[in-house]
Amino acid sequence: MKLWDKGTKVNQNVESFTVGKDRELDLQLAPFDVLGSLAHCKMLASINLLDPKELVLIEKELQKIFVDIEEGHFVIEEGIEDVHSQVEFLLTQTLGDVGKKIHSGRSRNDQVLLDLKLFTRHKIEQLVNKTQELFNVLIGNSEKYKDILIPGYTHLQVAMPSSFGLWFGAYAEALSDDLRLLQSAFKIVDQNPLGSGAGYGSSFPLDRKMTTDLLGFDDLNYNVVYAQMGRGKMEFAVVSALSNMAYTIGKLAMDACLYNSQNFGFISFADEFTTGSSIMPHKKNPDVFELVRAKANSLQVLPTQIQAVSSNLPSGYHRDYQLTKEFFMPAFDQLISCLEMTKTMLSNVKVNEDLLNDERYQYLFTVEMVNELVLKGVPFRDAYKEVGALVESGEFKFEGDLKHQHEGSIGNLCNDEIKQKLEKTISAFNFDKIDQAYQNLLGRS
Amino acid sequence: MKLWDKGTKVNQNVESFTVGKDRELDLQLAPFDVLGSLAHCKMLASINLLDPKELVLIEKELQKIFVDIEEGHFVIEEGIEDVHSQVEFLLTQTLGDVGKKIHSGRSRNDQVLLDLKLFTRHKIEQLVNKTQELFNVLIGNSEKYKDILIPGYTHLQVAMPSSFGLWFGAYAEALSDDLRLLQSAFKIVDQNPLGSGAGYGSSFPLDRKMTTDLLGFDDLNYNVVYAQMGRGKMEFAVVSALSNMAYTIGKLAMDACLYNSQNFGFISFADEFTTGSSIMPHKKNPDVFELVRAKANSLQVLPTQIQAVSSNLPSGYHRDYQLTKEFFMPAFDQLISCLEMTKTMLSNVKVNEDLLNDERYQYLFTVEMVNELVLKGVPFRDAYKEVGALVESGEFKFEGDLKHQHEGSIGNLCNDEIKQKLEKTISAFNFDKIDQAYQNLLGRS
Amino acid sequence: MKLWDKGTKVNQNVESFTVGKDRELDLQLAPFDVLGSLAHCKMLASINLLDPKELVLIEKELQKIFVDIEEGHFVIEEGIEDVHSQVEFLLTQTLGDVGKKIHSGRSRNDQVLLDLKLFTRHKIEQLVNKTQELFNVLIGNSEKYKDILIPGYTHLQVAMPSSFGLWFGAYAEALSDDLRLLQSAFKIVDQNPLGSGAGYGSSFPLDRKMTTDLLGFDDLNYNVVYAQMGRGKMEFAVVSALSNMAYTIGKLAMDACLYNSQNFGFISFADEFTTGSSIMPHKKNPDVFELVRAKANSLQVLPTQIQAVSSNLPSGYHRDYQLTKEFFMPAFDQLISCLEMTKTMLSNVKVNEDLLNDERYQYLFTVEMVNELVLKGVPFRDAYKEVGALVESGEFKFEGDLKHQHEGSIGNLCNDEIKQKLEKTISAFNFDKIDQAYQNLLGRS
Amino acid sequence: MKLWDKGTKVNQNVESFTVGKDRELDLQLAPFDVLGSLAHCKMLASINLLDPKELVLIEKELQKIFVDIEEGHFVIEEGIEDVHSQVEFLLTQTLGDVGKKIHSGRSRNDQVLLDLKLFTRHKIEQLVNKTQELFNVLIGNSEKYKDILIPGYTHLQVAMPSSFGLWFGAYAEALSDDLRLLQSAFKIVDQNPLGSGAGYGSSFPLDRKMTTDLLGFDDLNYNVVYAQMGRGKMEFAVVSALSNMAYTIGKLAMDACLYNSQNFGFISFADEFTTGSSIMPHKKNPDVFELVRAKANSLQVLPTQIQAVSSNLPSGYHRDYQLTKEFFMPAFDQLISCLEMTKTMLSNVKVNEDLLNDERYQYLFTVEMVNELVLKGVPFRDAYKEVGALVESGEFKFEGDLKHQHEGSIGNLCNDEIKQKLEKTISAFNFDKIDQAYQNLLGRS
Repeated sequence: MKLWDKGTKVNQNVESFTVGKDRELDLQLAPFDVLGSLAHCKMLASINLLDPKELVLIEKELQKIFVDIEEGHFVIEEGIEDVHSQVEFLLTQTLGDVGKKIHSGRSRNDQVLLDLKLFTRHKIEQLVNKTQELFNVLIGNSEKYKDILIPGYTHLQVAMPSSFGLWFGAYAEALSDDLRLLQSAFKIVDQNPLGSGAGYGSSFPLDRKMTTDLLGFDDLNYNVVYAQMGRGKMEFAVVSALSNMAYTIGKLAMDACLYNSQNFGFISFADEFTTGSSIMPHKKNPDVFELVRAKANSLQVLPTQIQAVSSNLPSGYHRDYQLTKEFFMPAFDQLISCLEMTKTMLSNVKVNEDLLNDERYQYLFTVEMVNELVLKGVPFRDAYKEVGALVESGEFKFEGDLKHQHEGSIGNLCNDEIKQKLEKTISAFNFDKIDQAYQNLLGRS
Repeated sequence: MKLWDKGTKVNQNVESFTVGKDRELDLQLAPFDVLGSLAHCKMLASINLLDPKELVLIEKELQKIFVDIEEGHFVIEEGIEDVHSQVEFLLTQTLGDVGKKIHSGRSRNDQVLLDLKLFTRHKIEQLVNKTQELFNVLIGNSEKYKDILIPGYTHLQVAMPSSFGLWFGAYAEALSDDLRLLQSAFKIVDQNPLGSGAGYGSSFPLDRKMTTDLLGFDDLNYNVVYAQMGRGKMEFAVVSALSNMAYTIGKLAMDACLYNSQNFGFISFADEFTTGSSIMPHKKNPDVFELVRAKANSLQVLPTQIQAVSSNLPSGYHRDYQLTKEFFMPAFDQLISCLEMTKTMLSNVKVNEDLLNDERYQYLFTVEMVNELVLKGVPFRDAYKEVGALVESGEFKFEGDLKHQHEGSIGNLCNDEIKQKLEKTISAFNFDKIDQAYQNLLGRS
Repeated sequence: MKLWDKGTKVNQNVESFTVGKDRELDLQLAPFDVLGSLAHCKMLASINLLDPKELVLIEKELQKIFVDIEEGHFVIEEGIEDVHSQVEFLLTQTLGDVGKKIHSGRSRNDQVLLDLKLFTRHKIEQLVNKTQELFNVLIGNSEKYKDILIPGYTHLQVAMPSSFGLWFGAYAEALSDDLRLLQSAFKIVDQNPLGSGAGYGSSFPLDRKMTTDLLGFDDLNYNVVYAQMGRGKMEFAVVSALSNMAYTIGKLAMDACLYNSQNFGFISFADEFTTGSSIMPHKKNPDVFELVRAKANSLQVLPTQIQAVSSNLPSGYHRDYQLTKEFFMPAFDQLISCLEMTKTMLSNVKVNEDLLNDERYQYLFTVEMVNELVLKGVPFRDAYKEVGALVESGEFKFEGDLKHQHEGSIGNLCNDEIKQKLEKTISAFNFDKIDQAYQNLLGRS
Repeated sequence: MKLWDKGTKVNQNVESFTVGKDRELDLQLAPFDVLGSLAHCKMLASINLLDPKELVLIEKELQKIFVDIEEGHFVIEEGIEDVHSQVEFLLTQTLGDVGKKIHSGRSRNDQVLLDLKLFTRHKIEQLVNKTQELFNVLIGNSEKYKDILIPGYTHLQVAMPSSFGLWFGAYAEALSDDLRLLQSAFKIVDQNPLGSGAGYGSSFPLDRKMTTDLLGFDDLNYNVVYAQMGRGKMEFAVVSALSNMAYTIGKLAMDACLYNSQNFGFISFADEFTTGSSIMPHKKNPDVFELVRAKANSLQVLPTQIQAVSSNLPSGYHRDYQLTKEFFMPAFDQLISCLEMTKTMLSNVKVNEDLLNDERYQYLFTVEMVNELVLKGVPFRDAYKEVGALVESGEFKFEGDLKHQHEGSIGNLCNDEIKQKLEKTISAFNFDKIDQAYQNLLGRS
């Protein structure tokens, strides 16, 4: 069954090529399709395109379908091309002609767009929660290991003293910034496209503000041509934000793989968190972080994939946008699994508490000595040359205390301030409003 | 002259390869380098690393250099590798050893990072202003031509009636969303990295909150390892935002090239805005929009470029980040020129006011007729089939009025609401605070 | 079961995260894994690491497994992590300790690499065949419609006369060039990595030239460190070639979508090759070409995906390369389906034979007139100005004959020369040699 | 002056926006523009569009201009938009109307395309030469240090013994494969587009085979629509090949940065090849390799840039292709500089000859012991478990000799076979034929 069936037969290869992965992906859209239909029907009733009795019948059926979805019983039946057709098919089976009416004032274009936006809001909520969990582990580790020094590198050269406190905390602060972009992407998503039809609106007197409220949206995509442009553009904004978060996770994973190498030996993991080699019995490989790294790097390609498909397409819907679902929809779970596995690993990390005795780190403290000289009144450039000469001659030795006390340094990590940044951003997402709207639509409040 | 000169000679090829385009790019950083140094010196004085008299001398010299830059007299002299060395060189020439002191508590790493951030804040301000100008032209055209209908397309097939009001307005609303991402990227930029040194902080008792205030920053990059991670990551966030704006401009340009084709004929331009052909005397080519399109498409590659360079680099500074300046710094002016040229073209566009009489647009109004039947009580699916049959038999003809009155449709563009979206986002940038801080540093307030 | 099982338990989440899609993807590698093992065992026997009787037993079992794979009975059982473990498991089940011996002198690293290379050679063969089929349809259409003129465009502006003969033929010649890159990628693939072990070779006296011959390889990857570098690099070369072919198909699909628009009307398709709209009964959408375009554009992102994962990884194996299989392996079937669907569509295309009477094409022949004047002795620049003036005044009219007779122009398409290019490239692939080698290994020749 | 000047004035901003960087880039095309014109004129004379005396005059002038270019005197004068206009301007200044005649039968489109192809052939020749130089250094180092062992890594974990012989040799073999792709890209370039005009051929009886021979091309781009499609597509093929070479160089640079770290200490460089730190006097940073790595990574983005611009552009010329010159033309010198600097660095590398005594490498030889047991008849899996147990208990110790004798392993590097691969590929480029053709055109043979 197809929504647009005119009675002509479509070539079988054409059909299977064009359906693609829709039946598989659409299962994830099912609950959102039902929620969207619930809001749409209430609105149709408000403008007399459904009578109140019809509305009651339809709502009851849709809520039943929603429960089926929740309980895992919903399927897209053989021969039905997508989730929208399946829901409409179920309604018509039960309600007859009344079921057909829900398509009034709606096109498959704005319906899909709406489903995708509701799905995306939901996935972003999961992502924010998972980010916060990883953030907490990072801050926890930062505090726990704040006194353990490690070498800091520039150019992969041993440079100056750093600490596990700094290292873990750095990625926590990075996540707090990543959420800023995610939050503005969320604001772009959180605007109602329903009513834009096929991209040119409708001659029905739709009440788009009503569906905006019913679905808990922050605002409308007003202009209907722009609303439709959301296919492609909405995804582009979201994956731009995801890729920034992936950037952070990827770098953390690279650090972890390097620090786990025998040549660094900063961190290690119990056997149950590593894998072995088919020919080398001594290997304990950090495969989790390697795959996190690979996935994080791969996720950063998403904007290019979206662009590759939508670039140079003129405005208006094109079937090309169907393909973007294949990259876009799985991206959330991929990133979530990376966050989850990173959290698991870092919750079980062992840190090497006695690193700095290694002779290769003997020059870590040169800057400390330069600075001591400066504080005694030696001009910086001269102090620099003096210490440089000691290094050249092999006489350098530093025995003072480490005094890094300014904001954000070894002795003053400012983790509380970093937590506040994160919390401020998270509080602006306002997921509760959406949840409340859904409960109302489902008659559960 | 090099900041880190130890007296050994560097191979000539190595030197010219590593300097790269720095001397050229750094000229744009010069004013920001001076502003950063002014703030740093005030802070050094506050913690007694400069005495008050030295501060006065240095400030006077730096302010003089700033005036030189403003007046176009500042150059990076032959044999001096970058802007930071040039400024320090000028100071030392005039003030002797006192000039050398400004490098205390600062590394070239946090200095470059600071300069880049101040530069970026400035360029974002220009971009926001230019976006607003284009937005105004788009809204103006949308209002001016709101009653002129054009065909709306899906799948590049003639679909339903649209209008110039919708078309211009769509891109205005798109820009209002693009600014949201830009604003969160700006917030990521607008955090003070100064004091992070080479990425591991300092043993001097730096007052990083003081420089934060002096430079008009919204907040600090607290964790010094994270601050340094900003190289690469900060650029990635910003170009992600730029690429979303470029996406909008690119699509607009594609539409314009298509609509300007004889096969559409929706818009045209006077000869002074088009170019000709070396062998076809009748051609009037939309080269401006083609180049805008190409540049906009190319700008969307920036995140990939940044990622390609920084991907899989462990934390800590690497010289690789120098190369990102080559893509990053010119991107702003490229995007600004696209906005500017689009504004110029759309301020001079001629729209075809009499499009719809063409026979190829005869089926534009099928949905109108379907909807009229529905309003008379025919179920949607049946109305759809009835009109479909008229189309197949060639009997379709629609003579009613167009009634598109819901929010964001042809008869109700909601341009005011769209303007409010834009203004709300712009008001959150708070550029005035930055300007005020600079005036104070320059002793001009 | 894992090849490297040491008896320690791996965390369940770690296990499922690291296995990823391997069990699913590996099914496609199964026949190649068996072929590789057959060659490896013959070689082990030749250096006395297997005795002749053991070899006979193992070969018989492996050939049985191969038949199971051919007949669709082979599965990777629950709890077995990949195809290599499954094959070894089956052998050990039947042959006991003898089955374990086939892992001597081999690492999972070179085994996977080998499987991937055999798989890739096979997929490239399919791709070449499918390319040739599409090529033949293109040349066929070019010849069939060689006398039907269409407008040629530059800058999307009507420019000069073109023809369906030129349009179809252009994409045929494009494919002939695409195969050149594919052929050198094939040569890069067609080198034996077996014996490189984990990337550092083996202390067994392996005879790598023997397995090279047994598997029908053209040459060896000699240096074992380079052989292992093939993970990532081999895929990069192949997808670079695929993306060039995708570029061609994508552009053809864009042309087709545009030419199928009512605003061009150059080509059309029967209903069974198009789809409709859920709200517009008159629509006949070219969804196949839109999805071909989208897939072709998306395939061009593959090199970036491979790079994103492997960039900045030092030499030596990393688990990251497992992820590249997820993009790499399905790419072939995606491209093949695009070629197949394009062939289907173009085999059923209807061309509009009467295009040029449309008034919007009146200036197509200006260059013809300019050239006629030049042949009469008028300098080109003057002829150009003269015709330009006629166009400006609306008096331009051309009534001569079209004389495009040079190589590759409307009257002289050179399709035979283009066919020769293709055939020359295809003949260099030498797939027969590979097939013969496999028959020998399977004891079927 | 513009080739297509019709007397109307173009808006000043439009003009400078559309000219872009052409005047700067075009200087590099100048010699090739003259060579193309020489061939074109000879052909025009052969079909009587120039009389023999005119040909002599024009050839003399063009050869003079060529000498000016060689001697560095050629400039594109103020107000002249590109190199083609400048050459025609010089001809017309000297020869009057005769000079104008060279534009007959040629469009700026095929002229630019030809210039780009001649330029590209030239740059590929330089690239091949530079690749061979680096290859020789790599093979030289491989032989020189073939007996010095280093640890081999998988997963960044110490794995098995490797050697400097393997490490250097691996990159040599990689380059030999990279040249294969470059060679097929070269074959795609080395086809004559001249005569394709604006993309639709010409009504003049052009002899395209004659210009093919005169310019030393291997073949023609026959189909004129395909020839024009070369803009974008030709660049895409070439940068695909360049990016594979960049992949190799980037990985080598990453290895070098890591191996130069104090945590590895495999290689080092004299002070004149490293740089220092502005605050850490002991640093010796491998900036050259960091910048090589960054540039190599950035070069791999080129295909995406080309795709971003040309994706979804229908066939036929678009001004967008002008922008591709900005990425494409400088790419060669960037890659050449990376090859050159890598050669310089590796010609001056110091290798650490006494690495393996470090305790962290104690398990390097576990596979050796496993294999010895296997050779004594122990089944592989059992030998693996036995050695694994020794490692776990800390009792592992290997004192045997290293026996890696198969092809491509430590004791048998096969550098001669690798050299033969390279030479075979290089010999197929046939640059001499091109050089001979140019000498003939310039009257120098």
